[in-house]
This record gives sequence, C-alpha cells and structure tokens, in this order.
Amino acid sequence: MDLASLIRNVPDFPVPGVQFKDITTLLQHPAAFRDIIDGWKMRYADKRITAIVGADARGFIFGGALAYTMGLPFVPARKKGKLPADTICEEYQLEYGTAVLEIHQDALKPGDRVVLIDDLLATGGTMRAIANMVERLGAEIVEIAFVVELPPLKGREKLNKYPVHSLVEFMVE
Amino acid sequence: MDLASLIRNVPDFPVPGVQFKDITTLLQHPAAFRDIIDGWKMRYADKRITAIVGADARGFIFGGALAYTMGLPFVPARKKGKLPADTICEEYQLEYGTAVLEIHQDALKPGDRVVLIDDLLATGGTMRAIANMVERLGAEIVEIAFVVELPPLKGREKLNKYPVHSLVEFMVE
Repeated sequence: MDLASLIRNVPDFPVPGVQFKDITTLLQHPAAFRDIIDGWKMRYADKRITAIVGADARGFIFGGALAYTMGLPFVPARKKGKLPADTICEEYQLEYGTAVLEIHQDALKPGDRVVLIDDLLATGGTMRAIANMVERLGAEIVEIAFVVELPPLKGREKLNKYPVHSLVEFMVE
Repeated sequence: MDLASLIRNVPDFPVPGVQFKDITTLLQHPAAFRDIIDGWKMRYADKRITAIVGADARGFIFGGALAYTMGLPFVPARKKGKLPADTICEEYQLEYGTAVLEIHQDALKPGDRVVLIDDLLATGGTMRAIANMVERLGAEIVEIAFVVELPPLKGREKLNKYPVHSLVEFMVE
C-alpha cells in the first residue's frame, strides 16, 4: 500500500513555513492502518518484546493497537501533569518550543524489552526524552518505530543509540 | 475478568478531594485490554458502524485498538490546536476547568454511523462536546462507550440523547 499518498500535507501548520504531515487521513483507510500494525506485529513477533510504549497523543493510536494485537502491556508516555501516580520526567526541546514528558515509575522494570511508537520522527526530541525515561527505569529499547520520518530534520542522529524504523519518508523540513 | 480491581485509585489528583481512576494499571494487563476491545467488537459487529471516534488522549488507546480490529476508520477528537486541517470546534466545561475540542470537517459525513470511545465518563462534558460535533457533521451516534463510569457525577444526564455503555462503575465523586 502506498502510505505516503494517504498522508495529508498541511502547509504552514502549526507555524508558517512548516509542512505538517497529517496522519488522520491515513486513519480513514482501515487497510492502511491494519498494514502498519500487522507489519510491526510481524517485525517484532520473535523479539521477546514485553511492552509497547506510545507517545502522547498520536502514538497512542498506533501503539495501543499494536499492544492490543500483540497481547502486550501498553505504557503511555505523557505530557506533564497527565499521569496521576508517581512519575519520572524529562524536559526536552520540541520542534516548536519546549515541554516535559512523564512516565509512571512502575510502568516498566529491569528486564523489560520494549518497542517505542510514535506517528512521526521530526527532530527526535520527544522520542529521545521518552527513550531516556525508559532506560532510567532499566528497560531495554529493542527498536523505535515511526510511521513517518522527515530525514532533513535529522531525528535519527538524536536517537543514534537505538535501532530506528520508519515506513514513509518525506524530504521536507 | 474483574476490571475494577485493575484500575488504580489515586486520591487528590489532579486536585484535592478528587479520587482519580487510573486506567494505566489496567493497560499493564493485556488480557483485560483485549477483553474490553473484543467485547466492544462483538457488541458493535452487526450495527453497520462506519467509523470509531476517540477522545484525546486516552480514548485514542482504546478507540485506536477498536478501529484496528474492526477494520474501521479512526477519527480523533482533539484538544484545540492539534488538528492541522479545517476543523469544527465546541467549547465545554471540564470537571476541572474549561476547554475546546475540535474534529476535522472532513472526518465524518452524513450517513456515517459511529461509536464514540473514551476511557472514563465523569461529568460528560468532554463527550457531549464530541457528540455535538459528530452530529454537526451529519453522522449518527449509535452508542457512546466508556471503560469506566462515575455515576455520582451524572454524566449520563448530559448524554441522555444517546445510548451510553460502560464496563465498570465507581461510586465516587
């Protein structure tokens, strides 16, 4: 399936000059959504994965579906103030500002082998913060998977400690 | 499965006096997550559903998994400023403040038959705003489904135009 053709380009969102890649149009196509999730399920089937970590908020759509179909725990990495129990946090640079992410302290433990999921790899700041938290909890990052990657923004450099996998590349900044 | 026992109570979150019902502990139990999603899949299998609408952000976890397994489009209802293309919006009262939700104008159309999904029904303000938007786009709401309901907060009264379904009730305010 040609996933790229199902992703909408929205110019000048959220700020002028940015070409925003909108995956909501892809989610209108169940066969495409299923291909993504089932492809990842096969990719990680024999990797002894113990949990799926998804990034707030679009990573919840893809990560939740993957955890469901693989029969694995789902761990949400959330924006500050959303997780109610004891958390660890990481501050990071967004493409368009700064923010703090959190994860529950009891969400992962040493010995866990996890896949981190988000819809889009831009500068990699969000996912680097999540990866840092996952490692602080003692879990091993088997791979970080995205639907879309924007190679000109060099997100892979920020994640170069880990295997990174993406399905669609757009050469936009 | 006793879903209630898998949901963590966090006192005084996000404000003193509130007993927060934390579904992240439930998501640590894949069999419970699967029971919820597969139960809804059976419930709606013969209802000619054409799309699943999920509420930002925990509704994405449950709604995304349901859309995946039912082979249906997934439509995110999001907090203001997150959806990049043309939207319609609704302002509403939160349990702990006010906010605006949006949905893409082209996400649903007349003739669509949808199920709305969120993790928790409290006062019903969030879901009422989403239901209003879904109806403004001409779609029919077949049911609104939650994992958890807090009956003392009377969310069903705000949603009394629609069938409402929940799996676990807690008698807390």
